[in-house]
Amino acid sequence: MNLEELIEKVANGEIKLHQVEKYTGDKRLATEVRRKALEKKLGISLENIGHYSIDPEQVIGKNIENMIGVVQIPMGVAGPLKINGEYAKGEFYIPLATTEGALVASVNRGCSALTAAGGVKTTIIDDKMTRAPLLKCPDARRAREVAQWVEENLEYLQEKAVSKVTRHGKLRGVKPYIVGNNLYLRFEFETGDAMGMNMVTIASEEIMKIIEEHFSDVKYLALSGNLCVDKKPNAMNFINGRGKTVIAEAVVPREIVEKKLKTTPELIAEVNYRKNLVGSAQAGSYGFNAHFGNIVGAIFLATGQDEAQITEGSHGITLAEVTPEGDLYISITMPSLEIGTVGGGTRVPTQREALSIMGVAGGGDPPGTNAKKFAEIVAGAVLAGELSLLAAIAAKHLAKAHKELGR
Amino acid sequence: MNLEELIEKVANGEIKLHQVEKYTGDKRLATEVRRKALEKKLGISLENIGHYSIDPEQVIGKNIENMIGVVQIPMGVAGPLKINGEYAKGEFYIPLATTEGALVASVNRGCSALTAAGGVKTTIIDDKMTRAPLLKCPDARRAREVAQWVEENLEYLQEKAVSKVTRHGKLRGVKPYIVGNNLYLRFEFETGDAMGMNMVTIASEEIMKIIEEHFSDVKYLALSGNLCVDKKPNAMNFINGRGKTVIAEAVVPREIVEKKLKTTPELIAEVNYRKNLVGSAQAGSYGFNAHFGNIVGAIFLATGQDEAQITEGSHGITLAEVTPEGDLYISITMPSLEIGTVGGGTRVPTQREALSIMGVAGGGDPPGTNAKKFAEIVAGAVLAGELSLLAAIAAKHLAKAHKELGR
Amino acid sequence: MNLEELIEKVANGEIKLHQVEKYTGDKRLATEVRRKALEKKLGISLENIGHYSIDPEQVIGKNIENMIGVVQIPMGVAGPLKINGEYAKGEFYIPLATTEGALVASVNRGCSALTAAGGVKTTIIDDKMTRAPLLKCPDARRAREVAQWVEENLEYLQEKAVSKVTRHGKLRGVKPYIVGNNLYLRFEFETGDAMGMNMVTIASEEIMKIIEEHFSDVKYLALSGNLCVDKKPNAMNFINGRGKTVIAEAVVPREIVEKKLKTTPELIAEVNYRKNLVGSAQAGSYGFNAHFGNIVGAIFLATGQDEAQITEGSHGITLAEVTPEGDLYISITMPSLEIGTVGGGTRVPTQREALSIMGVAGGGDPPGTNAKKFAEIVAGAVLAGELSLLAAIAAKHLAKAHKELGR
Amino acid sequence: MNLEELIEKVANGEIKLHQVEKYTGDKRLATEVRRKALEKKLGISLENIGHYSIDPEQVIGKNIENMIGVVQIPMGVAGPLKINGEYAKGEFYIPLATTEGALVASVNRGCSALTAAGGVKTTIIDDKMTRAPLLKCPDARRAREVAQWVEENLEYLQEKAVSKVTRHGKLRGVKPYIVGNNLYLRFEFETGDAMGMNMVTIASEEIMKIIEEHFSDVKYLALSGNLCVDKKPNAMNFINGRGKTVIAEAVVPREIVEKKLKTTPELIAEVNYRKNLVGSAQAGSYGFNAHFGNIVGAIFLATGQDEAQITEGSHGITLAEVTPEGDLYISITMPSLEIGTVGGGTRVPTQREALSIMGVAGGGDPPGTNAKKFAEIVAGAVLAGELSLLAAIAAKHLAKAHKELGR
Repeated sequence: MNLEELIEKVANGEIKLHQVEKYTGDKRLATEVRRKALEKKLGISLENIGHYSIDPEQVIGKNIENMIGVVQIPMGVAGPLKINGEYAKGEFYIPLATTEGALVASVNRGCSALTAAGGVKTTIIDDKMTRAPLLKCPDARRAREVAQWVEENLEYLQEKAVSKVTRHGKLRGVKPYIVGNNLYLRFEFETGDAMGMNMVTIASEEIMKIIEEHFSDVKYLALSGNLCVDKKPNAMNFINGRGKTVIAEAVVPREIVEKKLKTTPELIAEVNYRKNLVGSAQAGSYGFNAHFGNIVGAIFLATGQDEAQITEGSHGITLAEVTPEGDLYISITMPSLEIGTVGGGTRVPTQREALSIMGVAGGGDPPGTNAKKFAEIVAGAVLAGELSLLAAIAAKHLAKAHKELGR
Repeated sequence: MNLEELIEKVANGEIKLHQVEKYTGDKRLATEVRRKALEKKLGISLENIGHYSIDPEQVIGKNIENMIGVVQIPMGVAGPLKINGEYAKGEFYIPLATTEGALVASVNRGCSALTAAGGVKTTIIDDKMTRAPLLKCPDARRAREVAQWVEENLEYLQEKAVSKVTRHGKLRGVKPYIVGNNLYLRFEFETGDAMGMNMVTIASEEIMKIIEEHFSDVKYLALSGNLCVDKKPNAMNFINGRGKTVIAEAVVPREIVEKKLKTTPELIAEVNYRKNLVGSAQAGSYGFNAHFGNIVGAIFLATGQDEAQITEGSHGITLAEVTPEGDLYISITMPSLEIGTVGGGTRVPTQREALSIMGVAGGGDPPGTNAKKFAEIVAGAVLAGELSLLAAIAAKHLAKAHKELGR
Repeated sequence: MNLEELIEKVANGEIKLHQVEKYTGDKRLATEVRRKALEKKLGISLENIGHYSIDPEQVIGKNIENMIGVVQIPMGVAGPLKINGEYAKGEFYIPLATTEGALVASVNRGCSALTAAGGVKTTIIDDKMTRAPLLKCPDARRAREVAQWVEENLEYLQEKAVSKVTRHGKLRGVKPYIVGNNLYLRFEFETGDAMGMNMVTIASEEIMKIIEEHFSDVKYLALSGNLCVDKKPNAMNFINGRGKTVIAEAVVPREIVEKKLKTTPELIAEVNYRKNLVGSAQAGSYGFNAHFGNIVGAIFLATGQDEAQITEGSHGITLAEVTPEGDLYISITMPSLEIGTVGGGTRVPTQREALSIMGVAGGGDPPGTNAKKFAEIVAGAVLAGELSLLAAIAAKHLAKAHKELGR
Repeated sequence: MNLEELIEKVANGEIKLHQVEKYTGDKRLATEVRRKALEKKLGISLENIGHYSIDPEQVIGKNIENMIGVVQIPMGVAGPLKINGEYAKGEFYIPLATTEGALVASVNRGCSALTAAGGVKTTIIDDKMTRAPLLKCPDARRAREVAQWVEENLEYLQEKAVSKVTRHGKLRGVKPYIVGNNLYLRFEFETGDAMGMNMVTIASEEIMKIIEEHFSDVKYLALSGNLCVDKKPNAMNFINGRGKTVIAEAVVPREIVEKKLKTTPELIAEVNYRKNLVGSAQAGSYGFNAHFGNIVGAIFLATGQDEAQITEGSHGITLAEVTPEGDLYISITMPSLEIGTVGGGTRVPTQREALSIMGVAGGGDPPGTNAKKFAEIVAGAVLAGELSLLAAIAAKHLAKAHKELGR
């Protein structure tokens, strides 16, 4: 069958999208065929989608199926941003992929003010990836027994299950939740530089085999019982954390607030109070912040993180206070930043290059340090984004107030 | 100054990232300069980021600043999916940009089962974009007065404010929230085919001018008081909706569930019940679903939607029930799907091409119909993703049960 | 059968608890018999439970079944509290029934400070009682049709259903929620001076009859679909309100804060910020306050309100701010205060007397004004309770700081 | 001063309410004086409030201030209910104080069905009382250090602080939460048979003294930072528990469901699914149940529990399922039932008598067993209440369906 025939058959549905590789052998060619079949069938041009430098052989199967090309998302950089972290130390440029005008400029402005203020202090409070398999038990009492057994046999499970399937993953704890006859075992793992979902998924699957053997009256129903929680807005991660729990803080001298940001610490604190705290309270929100999601989203896209985890990345709290000295204290607390520097989308060339801009491409030495460094940079960037937006709101209000006074 | 000198000055910080355009005039060249400056300064290669077909002249300023190139995210297609909507009628292919392996394949499988079952019925329940400016009032009683005045003067505000700044935006209502001396006016707009954030932002700004004139003792503090709610997980949108509130449903005959999905309606219903309802309940979640975020995320990236709004796109509820006839009823309810087919990232060529795959690129006739059609397709794809994942979990459990019986 | 025999038969289970009235005729006697039967069977004394002045004839059937006596809960009074409301004007004493030591004293102290400050300004933002029947529909599109019909026929439903069963209840609106094939119709009623649950229950039942007639393919499944929401912590009422939505505010001069409360406006504001706003945010709370529940609870018990509705009474937000003049602005916002002055437990003599202390026993003229006045007094008392507790915390902190300085 | 003069002076405000004891010496007399002063001032009669058997000497100061008498709340009993717990074994009568008509009857009906079904199985999953003091730290990193020190010094704190002020309280753990520069230390205590708030308050206060000594740069700001969480609806307790976390379950044979409850397991399961799970999900609720609050509330009032903690008592999830055998499995999961059998209001005579009806008045042997037994009985009663209400809804629906079929 020649290429034209193949395209025709895909277009008319005789050959299905996922079967094309069988006919082409070559994955790049399969990508072309699918795209051309769509163009033909729909009478459209997908020329730009067909323009890419990444190698379909490398991503099909690992990162994508039924590939037709790529989406090109503009990438900008903000910075430099000075970070005084425990892993990230020095000045960093932050790659941001987005189509939202003014976002990069806004983060950039925040970086400038924070760097002038001496930089951002970042602190990682916790670091874990979780999976919560679901078991249906005869009753709650049996569920409690299973939970207790698991709690008492973590080392055994690490040895007999986890270590068999992963080198970097380490089972560090479990928190059981029982609802009626349902048992959810929220396992906590260390996952090195990987975001870790794959790792903990495989490890949890392996643990479940052992539990099923030990407790034959218990039915293992799903690898995720939605208490992990993955890719959903939720109180569990907001309160108990998932991925990196990280805080970024800075004290911005009044002079910098006034000269660079054209407003005052008092007004920034007031806007944060009425908008991010009181407004979000009334909204029943887990996002007591101005726009974590924007910065997290743009970094996630640039660096090959899981886009659906932007959801948990948008959880968190911004605080802004006037210090006794009259300066601005500002902080962001991110309970559930799920990121990695190896695996998943981080392998794709553009994404890997974006990570290299921050010096965090690939695994760290010792393992885990690169992902932690990355988390600190993300937190710093989020702080820059929050400061910039809050200051812009406050400056506008101040300008208006001045104008009114001038009347 | 020649190019090498310029790159050098950018690399050493003499010229700032956002100043490069001043020296190059040309935006494409500025993009090159910034990228090369980073390469030089950091000793890295950003070759792939520099590979793109989109035109920096078109996106810098509108969609990005400090551009250095693009991120390439692999794009696949799932489908065809038959949709019996009020706007989307027929079979559709769905473009998905992601780096999560198996996602496209999974959605594809769901499409296949749903199409075989006669397709997805989609229903748009509500459609509005909201903005909630924040006003500080002398006291709650004054806040109530302002709120009442606004409620009684919607047409006046449409005429004197909204219509002056937007052709497509229409103020259709307001819901005031008062907390102590703070007034949050959650304005609701129709925004045609645009997602509408820009439109409602400008319109709300204009409305605020009028309110400030009428109520001189009230301080307009922020255009968003976080009750909009934009890009944060929250009960407000989950309950009261934002963007499109849309439902997709299907009845999948038992035979298809058994043959195509290798499981039973009973098991799918049970997994949904224990995982998506009970598990998410215990997690304090606004996402009573398996993985809305994955499908929403991949479509958002492919089509130039705002990536941070994946957060609200992950809100919602999946139901799965056995019908009296023994078939599977499955539905997804999405309260806050914020999407558009014009404006923002939809203008970028690869994104626009992706929209054209679904026949929804650009404005509809009449305005709004394209965005509604798009919403129905997204909802259908999300249903496909949910069905596929739930069925996979249930099939695994079934296989295991069979194996155990076979022992 | 003589009394001894009857008691014996009840004790040994031959006669069931709820059958006693059949043998005694007299309800007071039945109460004695049950109590004595328990005493005999269990070998205990219930002497104090048997000590009461209320008349079993009046409460059995209306307020209680299987009556054995009463619980005596100590009642204290706080006040006077000056209230500058739209319904409550003047100084009021507040009856509080509780067993929590120091609560009455604490509220009393708050009343004293607020009255010295010129009193509390109260504002009722909204007033409605809701019921949300649940209908199972063939699909979401049908659910939308039903919802639209209901929205367009409110007057018809008022006339043909509501007005037939209640004189004071008035259907003022409906907000439909659709989840897959489920329709929840959250009806909003005005209910005069009654808390109104009974009234809206009966009226909703009547409305359902009409809907079932009009839509024979729709199954009316439950009078409450849990979106009312009654007696559960929830975002719906917290955001959209239920019962009275009421705000109480005061500006307390710095001098009073310092002299009477032994602290400063700054410290009170800081405690409120870190505890009630930031702490409650991190807890995923709908109660951004110090102890609404305590004051609400004690008034509810004293006045015969529904004790389970203390839950929604504990929803709400406390704000404390330093004014530009250096005084303390403090407010409480209660979204869902469900109370009445007629019906239910308000008829019981001690409860009715407690209402009379505030001048709100029975129906108002015009109807509804007594319940609104009562709501304002409750809000004032809650403000007093919040101020007192926050000030106590702040004063302690201040005293300690002074002591440390004195070292 | 004679009594008339005293009453007059209290009535006209010369003598304040809380000063009366100074003049009377006698607390009972002071109670009379205050009540009569109110009667005189307001021109009302508080005769019934003045009718009581409890001794003001015993409650004033401990449970109430400014006492004027008592509120009499009707008390009924439901039961017997068979409970197969680990602490409660046998048949129990449940005292319920309420003014909500039909509540006792409804619980009673549930008890009857459950007892006929062989009784309720109860399981306590966790048991702890928490307090979360708030500390303002120089920055997050310092907060993390303090938290780590506390985590590593629990035994030291038990010995040097806790054991000094309480015999029954035992510090068993701590979970720190850090938001920016704020540290919330959620201490977990065992508190024997007491609900424990007083105990943990005093113990936490003592712990704070030590922490302040160790960390002089940290400011201890409030004993409760609202992450405890006490008396507010919140995700923290709903997810992580407070007080007793307890589950009650039963399998009710189809025959009993049909004969006693006039409905079917299928219908009860459907009502629970659409109302308690789906409806509560859409409401953003922490109460996935029909009316926990009613039963919890009535038992709390009868037995002298803290009425404001009805709020957390209303948290929880009801499940109803049809078993493979066609019977009904029903369970209730209560994450945060805060109760005790000693201390607080349990000392008041009527309340203590109510506890004695269940055989749980006073301390257990060993300590803690009485409170646990009580928790199991409450959980059983709540299950009875849920079963009864769900069955009533389902029966009504069934009756209607039958009637329609009969047409």
